[in-house]
Amino acid sequence: ELAPSVVHSCEHGKSMAEASRTSEARRDAVFARWVIFSPARSRRPTDLKSHGPANPSPGPDDGAPKPSCPFCLGRESECAPEIFRVPPPDASPPWRIRVIENLFPALRREAAPPAPEDEEPVGAGECAVRGFGFHDVVIETPHHEVRLWDLDAEGVRDVLLAYARRVQQLAEHPAVKYVQVFKNQGASAGASMAHSHSQMLGTPFVPPSVTSRLNCMKEVFERSGKCSLCVVPSKDILVSETHNFSAFVPFAASYPFEIWIVPRQHSSYFHETDQDKVLDLAGLLKSMLHKLCKQLNDPPFNYMIHSAPFGLSSSCLPYTHWFLQIVPQLSVIGGFEMGSGCHINPVFPEDAAKILREIDGS
Amino acid sequence: ELAPSVVHSCEHGKSMAEASRTSEARRDAVFARWVIFSPARSRRPTDLKSHGPANPSPGPDDGAPKPSCPFCLGRESECAPEIFRVPPPDASPPWRIRVIENLFPALRREAAPPAPEDEEPVGAGECAVRGFGFHDVVIETPHHEVRLWDLDAEGVRDVLLAYARRVQQLAEHPAVKYVQVFKNQGASAGASMAHSHSQMLGTPFVPPSVTSRLNCMKEVFERSGKCSLCVVPSKDILVSETHNFSAFVPFAASYPFEIWIVPRQHSSYFHETDQDKVLDLAGLLKSMLHKLCKQLNDPPFNYMIHSAPFGLSSSCLPYTHWFLQIVPQLSVIGGFEMGSGCHINPVFPEDAAKILREIDGS
Ligand SMILES: Nc1ncnc2c1ncn2[C@@H]1O[C@H](COP(=O)(O)OP(=O)(O)O[C@H]2O[C@H](CO)[C@@H](O)[C@H](O)[C@H]2O)[C@@H](O)[C@H]1O
Ligand SMILES: Nc1ncnc2c1ncn2[C@@H]1O[C@H](COP(=O)(O)OP(=O)(O)O[C@H]2O[C@H](CO)[C@@H](O)[C@H](O)[C@H]2O)[C@@H](O)[C@H]1O
Repeated sequence: ELAPSVVHSCEHGKSMAEASRTSEARRDAVFARWVIFSPARSRRPTDLKSHGPANPSPGPDDGAPKPSCPFCLGRESECAPEIFRVPPPDASPPWRIRVIENLFPALRREAAPPAPEDEEPVGAGECAVRGFGFHDVVIETPHHEVRLWDLDAEGVRDVLLAYARRVQQLAEHPAVKYVQVFKNQGASAGASMAHSHSQMLGTPFVPPSVTSRLNCMKEVFERSGKCSLCVVPSKDILVSETHNFSAFVPFAASYPFEIWIVPRQHSSYFHETDQDKVLDLAGLLKSMLHKLCKQLNDPPFNYMIHSAPFGLSSSCLPYTHWFLQIVPQLSVIGGFEMGSGCHINPVFPEDAAKILREIDGS
Repeated sequence: ELAPSVVHSCEHGKSMAEASRTSEARRDAVFARWVIFSPARSRRPTDLKSHGPANPSPGPDDGAPKPSCPFCLGRESECAPEIFRVPPPDASPPWRIRVIENLFPALRREAAPPAPEDEEPVGAGECAVRGFGFHDVVIETPHHEVRLWDLDAEGVRDVLLAYARRVQQLAEHPAVKYVQVFKNQGASAGASMAHSHSQMLGTPFVPPSVTSRLNCMKEVFERSGKCSLCVVPSKDILVSETHNFSAFVPFAASYPFEIWIVPRQHSSYFHETDQDKVLDLAGLLKSMLHKLCKQLNDPPFNYMIHSAPFGLSSSCLPYTHWFLQIVPQLSVIGGFEMGSGCHINPVFPEDAAKILREIDGS
C-alpha cells in the first residue's frame, strides 16, 4: 500500500485520478508486461502497520567521517580492493569517486569462468554454472552525508562516467554477457549501507528481464519497423526533456511515480554515450531525483540502467535502446504481483507525470 | 538482507552452506529464470535498520471479534457482497468460510468486458483494455486470531475447496482468461488486513509470468518430451511427500526457503483436483506453513497457486502442470533483482530443504 506520507502528499493527484478514471489494464512495448491501474485501491483501509519509507537521510552534517563506515574518506583500507578512483591517485585533491570490489560479492571474479562448452546452455531446462562474475561498488562521494543529487551536475556526470568506464572494462572480458548497473537508496529499497553508492554486477549469462525485453522489442520492430523507445512519448506522460534525453512516466508503469530517462537518439549501449550527452543526462537525473525527494517525502528508491547484452549481432542493434529506470519504493509487492508478474499501480502515469511536472526539480 | 531472527535460527544451515559451497548460478525449467546462490552474502554488514519480518500474529486470543475488523463474525454487513459461504446460509452452525467481493477491487466486475474485437491483442506493442475483471476475498475463518495453519486439515481443505469452487465459477465467464489465487500474510508480505484471508483476481488477459511459464515449459517439452514438473525432485531438495503431492525447495529457488507443492500426477488445472486429493494437499500445506513458522520465527509470507489459463488448446495440456508456491518474506528486493529479473538467494535449496526436513511440521 502507499505509505501514509505519500497518500498525503499526492492527495491532489489522486483525487483527480479517481474523479476522472476507473480501472484500466495496460501492456507496454518494452517488456510486454500487463499492469493494472486502479486509483480506488489507494483508499483501502489497513489494520496492519506498514513500514513507511525508511528515512534514507543520514544524521546531521558535521562533515566528519562516520566511525563505522568503510566508504568514508580515510577508511579506504577497510574496503575491498580499489579498481580505480577519480581523480587518479597521483592527482593532488583527495578522491571524489572510488570504484571498488564488493567485499561480499554475489559472483566471484576468482571463480573459473564458464568453459566455452558449458557456455550459457541454449534452449530451456534446468542448468547450473559456476558463480563466476564481477560485483563492484561505486562510492559516489567521500562524504557520508552527501546524497547523489546533492552533487552538482558535473559531479553526477562523473559518477555516470565511472559506471561507463567500468562497464567498458567488463565488456572486454569474453565470459561477461551483461552488466547490470543499479543503485539502492534507503533500507526498504534494499540498501545495507547508508553512504551514497551504486553497484554493478557483470554476469556470465543474459539475465531474464533482459531476454524478455529484447524479445519484446524485437517483436515490435518486426511488426512495426520501429524501435519501441524511439517513439516520442506523448505530452501527458512527459516530465521533462533536454536536447538529448526525455524523462517520462512510462505508459504502463509498474510502480507509482516510476520514471524512465531515455536517449532521444537511438543508441543500444549506455557505456558508449559521449561525455557531452552524459552531462546532459546527469542534469536530468539530478532533477528527477530532486523532484521525487521533494514531492514524495524523500522516498527510498532504486534506479537501474537497462542496456544491451555484449556481443549482440548487428541485426539486433536497431531494436535495442538503452534507458535508465527510477523506481521510488512506495508500495509493497503482494502475492498477486509475485505470482502473476502483473503489477497493480494505484497512480495513472498521466497523473504521476502531472504531479512531477508541477514541482521544481532544481 | 536476511532478517536477524533468520540469521540466528538458520545459523546451522548457513555455516554448512558456506563451508561446502561457493557461488553458483542456476536456471529453472519452469520459468527459465536465472538465480544466483551466494551464501557469503548473508554475512555482509549493515548500518541501515532493516525492517525485520512484521509479526503477523494478532493479539491475545480472547475469542471476541476485533471491533474494527469487517472480516470477523457478526460484522458481515460491513463487507462487500458475499458470493457464497461455507456451510451455506441455511445450515445451522455459523459460517466457517466466506467468499466475498473485494470492496476496493483492482479490476471491476461492473466494467464492460472487452469486446471480442479488442480481445487480448496478439503480438507485442502498447495496448490498453478496460479494467474488467473479478477481485474476490476468501475469509478463511470467522475468528480474528486464528491463522490458516491453526485449522485442522479438513478446515484447510475447505478453504482450498472454496478457492476451487470460485475459480470454477470464474472459468465459466468467457472474458476471464486467468485466475490468480494468492495469500498475503503479514504486513511486509503486503497484507493490509490481519484477519486470515486470501484473494483471487480473474483477469481479462493472461498475466506475464503465466505466459513465460508456459513458453518455458513448452520449450522443455518439445526438446525432451517431458513436462518440467513431472520430473521427480531429487532427494536433497525434497521436504516432504504424500501419496499425491511433493513438497520441495525448487532447484533454482528465487527466494530463501521458498517451497513448491506439486501434484505427483500430471494435472493442468488446480480447480479440477478431486476432494480426496485436496485433503491430502491441505495436510501438506498446513505442515509446510507450520515448518516455516517454527523454523523461521513466524515470518510474513505469500503463497500463490500457479494454474493454467482457461481455454487452452489440448495440445498445451501435456506441458502445463499446476503447483502451489510458498514464499517466506526474509529478504528485500534491490535494484539488481528489479533490473535484471535475476534474484540473489543466500541459501542453497539443498540446505534450506535439509533445515525444513529436520523440524516437525505437525
Ligand atoms: N568494506 C567494504 N568493502 C567493499 N564492499 C563492501 C564493504 N562493506 C560492505 N560492502 C558491500 O557494499 C554493498 C552495499 O550495497 P547496498 O547497500 O546497495 O545493498 P546490498 O548489496 O547490501 O543488498 C541489496 O541489494 C542486493 C542486490 O539488489 C539485494 O540482493 C539485497 O537483497 C539488497 O538488500 C553490499 O553489497 C556490501 O557487500
Ligand atoms: N469491508 C471489506 N469488504 C471487502 N473487502 C475488503 C474490506 N475491507 C478491506 N477489504 C479488502 O481486503 C483485502 C485485504 O487484502 P490483503 O491484506 O491480502 O492485501 P491488499 O489487497 O490490501 O494489498 C496487498 O496485495 C496486493 C495484491 O498482491 C498488492 O497490490 C498490494 O501492494 C499489497 O499491499 C484488500 O484488497 C481490501 O481491499
